[in-house]
Order: sequence, then C-alpha cells, then structure tokens
Amino acid sequence: MTDRTVAALDIGGTKTAAALVDGSGAVVARATAPTPGRAGPAAILQTAADLVKSLAARSAATTPAALGVGSAGVVDSASGRVTGSTDVLRDWMGTDLRGELSRRTGLPTAVVNDVHAHALGEARFGVGAGQPSLLFLAVGTGVGASFVFRGEVLTGAHGVAGHAGHLPSVYAADRACTCGGRGHLEAVAAGPALAAEYGRRAGATDVVLHQVAALAERGDEVALGVAELGGRAVGAALGGMANLLDPHSVVVGGGVTGLGRAWWQALRAAFTAEVLPVLRGTTVRPTSLGGDGALLGAASIAPVEAP
Amino acid sequence: MTDRTVAALDIGGTKTAAALVDGSGAVVARATAPTPGRAGPAAILQTAADLVKSLAARSAATTPAALGVGSAGVVDSASGRVTGSTDVLRDWMGTDLRGELSRRTGLPTAVVNDVHAHALGEARFGVGAGQPSLLFLAVGTGVGASFVFRGEVLTGAHGVAGHAGHLPSVYAADRACTCGGRGHLEAVAAGPALAAEYGRRAGATDVVLHQVAALAERGDEVALGVAELGGRAVGAALGGMANLLDPHSVVVGGGVTGLGRAWWQALRAAFTAEVLPVLRGTTVRPTSLGGDGALLGAASIAPVEAP
Repeated sequence: MTDRTVAALDIGGTKTAAALVDGSGAVVARATAPTPGRAGPAAILQTAADLVKSLAARSAATTPAALGVGSAGVVDSASGRVTGSTDVLRDWMGTDLRGELSRRTGLPTAVVNDVHAHALGEARFGVGAGQPSLLFLAVGTGVGASFVFRGEVLTGAHGVAGHAGHLPSVYAADRACTCGGRGHLEAVAAGPALAAEYGRRAGATDVVLHQVAALAERGDEVALGVAELGGRAVGAALGGMANLLDPHSVVVGGGVTGLGRAWWQALRAAFTAEVLPVLRGTTVRPTSLGGDGALLGAASIAPVEAP
Repeated sequence: MTDRTVAALDIGGTKTAAALVDGSGAVVARATAPTPGRAGPAAILQTAADLVKSLAARSAATTPAALGVGSAGVVDSASGRVTGSTDVLRDWMGTDLRGELSRRTGLPTAVVNDVHAHALGEARFGVGAGQPSLLFLAVGTGVGASFVFRGEVLTGAHGVAGHAGHLPSVYAADRACTCGGRGHLEAVAAGPALAAEYGRRAGATDVVLHQVAALAERGDEVALGVAELGGRAVGAALGGMANLLDPHSVVVGGGVTGLGRAWWQALRAAFTAEVLPVLRGTTVRPTSLGGDGALLGAASIAPVEAP
C-alpha cells in the first residue's frame, strides 16, 4: 500500500461494507448495504460496486486509486475467482470476482477470502502490527483460520489453506461436519453447532446463537455449559495450531466470541493446557479492529500502482 | 546454495552423519560415527567436527566452503543455539551449536533442527523440488513436522514451530504426553507409544518398535492392529494439517514408517477421510532421499559467500 487512498469491500453473507481507506489505514468514508445473497452473483456484485461508486462520488477530493476486496467463499487470489462457496451466497462459486468488480467500478482490483482479509487487517494495522507472523481464527457460522507470514497470507496449493474448522476435535466426537467428514472442530464449535447443542440440552427448538449468548449473560447454567464446551474445543484446537505454527500473535474473532466471558475463559484455559511450556505465555487476543478488520485488510491488498 | 561444495552434518540421537555435498545436491563423500550422547556437548561437538575434518582431509581437491548442520533438539537458527532438548543428548540445551562447530571446523556455519533439515532436503532436492510448499512429518521416537514455504522453513516466534506431535488426537484419548500435556498425537503415534501399546495388548514387556514391525511383517494380528492404530492417528492429524496449510506436497518419514504396509494403508485411509474434497487427490509420499534427507537439507543452508 502506498499513501494513496483506496477503496475496500467486505462482502459477507448478510452485509456488504465498503470504505475509503487512506494510506495510514484510517477509514475516511464508509457505507453498507444488505448483501442480496439469494438474488445471485449479478445482484451481489452490483450492490458492492454501487457502494464503492457512491463513496467515490461523495468524496470527489479523494478519488480511490484501486480496490481491495474481501469476500465470503473460497477465493483464488491468483485467478480472481470464487472457487468454493456455501449456499448463503447463491451461485457464488465460479464468479469472476476481480474481473466483474474491476469492470463495474473502473478500478484496478485484488480479491481475497474475507477471513484472510480480516487477518491481513490485524497483521498490518491491529494486534499483529510490526510482527512477523499472526494466526487468526474466525469462529462464526463456520470456523476459519488465516496464517499471515511476513505480511502475506498463506493461501495454499488449492486456495483452501485456513480451513481450521476441519481439524479433528476430541470434543466433536463423531458428529457430521459440513464438509462431509466427521468429528471436526466446526461440527462442535461453530455458531449453529452450539445453538443446536443448547437446544438438545434444554429441550428447545429453533434456538439461535444470540439467544444462547443472552442466556449465558444472565447466568443460565445450560447456556454457560454450552459456551464452555465451545470455548474448550476452540482453545484446544488453537493450542495445537500454536504448537505447529508458533505464531507471534494469536487473534480470535467472529460472532461466536459474543458468547462472552465463559467462552473466553474456557478457550484460554484449554489453550494453555494444550501448548508447549514455552508457548504458555502466548496471549490469545480478541480482534482489535472491530468490524473494520476485513475492510482494512482488503484495503491493504488494493493494487495501487507506484505514482 | 551456490555451485561450491559444502560440508553437512546430521547430528541425531544415536548417529552423527557428515557429508560433502556439491552444488547439484550430490553427496561426494560421507562418514558416520556414533553420537556420544551420554558424554555431553563437548564430546558430541568434537565427534561432529572430526567427521567434517576427516572428509575435508580426504578430499583435498574440494575444500568445503561452508558448513550446514541439522541437529536433534530445538535449534534457534538465528542465535545458533540449542534452546530445547530431550535427555538423549545430555546437557545439549544451551549449546552454542553454530559458534562451537564454526570454531572447531574453521568453516562459516548455519544450524537448524534435524526435522527441518530433512524437510528442506525434500523441498529442494526430493519430492517437493520446484513446488512452493511442503509439509513434512517425521514419526519416530517423537513426532515432528516441518512446513517449508518458498524454500524457507517456518521456525516460528520461539523456534518451536513444527511440534505437530502436540496436536490433539482423538486416538490418544487422555494419555500423558512427553510435553506434560494430555491426549496429544505423540502419546499414541510415536515409536515408544506404539511399542508400549503392543506390550499392553500382548501382555509383553520391554517390547521395542522394530520387534512390532517384524511381527506385523509376519502377519501377527496384534502387531497389525497396533500398526493400524498408529497409521490412523497420523493420517487423521496429517489430514487436519493439510486442511489448515493446503501444502503442495506431503511427505512422511521417520523410523515408524518401518511398520510397513498396514501402517501406510491406515494412514492414507484416515488422511483421505479427514481432508476437504478438493484435497482428496493429495498424495502422502514417503521420503525420497532415504537417510540423506537431513544431510542435503543441512547442506542447502550452508552459508556460502558469493565468490
């Protein structure tokens, strides 16, 4: 990134956020819109492009030089295409994300998966600033990780690096996972899994995660037990990852962090029990950039040409 | 590495190997000696240095330009010191490996852990040659990994990256691990753990791994069951690591691979069951460089100055 102002997009399952970000990593303008996920790629792309254009029109003095995009789905940064996706964004897989957004905004564009974008934001402007490596774990509807090494995100041979939700977990026993496997972290620790676990334990149906969080906040024993299960599962997996990668920083974000103190305490206890003695001093930190992490990371990959 | 001939050392728990390696990665001379592990650092270092000096004396026409060292223990490549070790090499921890070997051989020296050295050898001259990333797993007395990315090994914030033996394993249940933790991969899949498991199942004492391997080779059902347990545990953990890192190559070495076909079959089946669909085509390969992997990797880090 140079000192030029750039545009950034964070295309999520429910919301699309856009911002203009200056060379210091400060957001100078922002706009959001619901992601028309059920309406398909053309609508999603147009919503995103319109947000960028509206920001550029508002801020005529600071025309963005380029666009960086973080998006839900498996994104191949090299080809610029979406190579994997869940049903939240209909027909998203195969979309030429870079080409379409570049065409619709007129800006040189680079694209990356949204978890990787968030990790890049933390690595460059947040908890990991100035450090050589960062492990980021996002625990939400799914469980995804991103490992940033010397300012670059590890994307892997098939663009699927970071699928930490598909590490084996003792806590998942033999539960079916979204990937078709069994006993994976995501099958016990993701938001829907924890909501379903609460439902099973309390004999309730149609429970969603924020209800469990509210119940835990009020001291409900069943909700607290579910939060502890989720925290332990994440902490143990994160400890194993730390033993493997020995990262300089460890950051955890995502909607499930909203389960609050019981979840974090269980996570940190399990992490400490799992790691090698030399890593016991490692602090597992919450995201420091709030909702702007993915936007700032996306901004950091915007392909600005040297002036 | 330039086209100059360099010296390489592989300092293991039982054996120290030395070689002269030319610029193409070919071993042009070699020598080995038992590692005097119980005699302490001075004896270990002198044995290693003497091997290098004897090779250099034998090959007067090809004076080595530098020395690369792979050694058992946790090795901090930046400071050149051993920062962690088991009892196999007495008082090894704290040894100024780079300084002492440079002083004793008169050669510019670089040092790295032996599992990392082996991975570098495979990445540069073996299975991973020409590919951007490689995940190597060594399953022997312990279980260690190494992730090589763009020709460089990931050593981590504390030099302990690669401790894959301390990933949680469903197969280890609550078994105590050498690190003080519980339920780790090493506690079920390392050689001593498998030998002990055979002993428990067969009601035998003082069993060592090569006996289990010989029994498995002859079709002994108990030994085959133990080999399958070890293979499954390794394959599941390796599958999780592949989901996280999406490496271009996956290579497995170490003494436990001597358990043979039953172990490898269980490993590959568990790996395939664990990985994301897009990774199911990934081949888990045995080491391609035999006993020379660590030597060739060590040679590749020898600090040769540009002529």
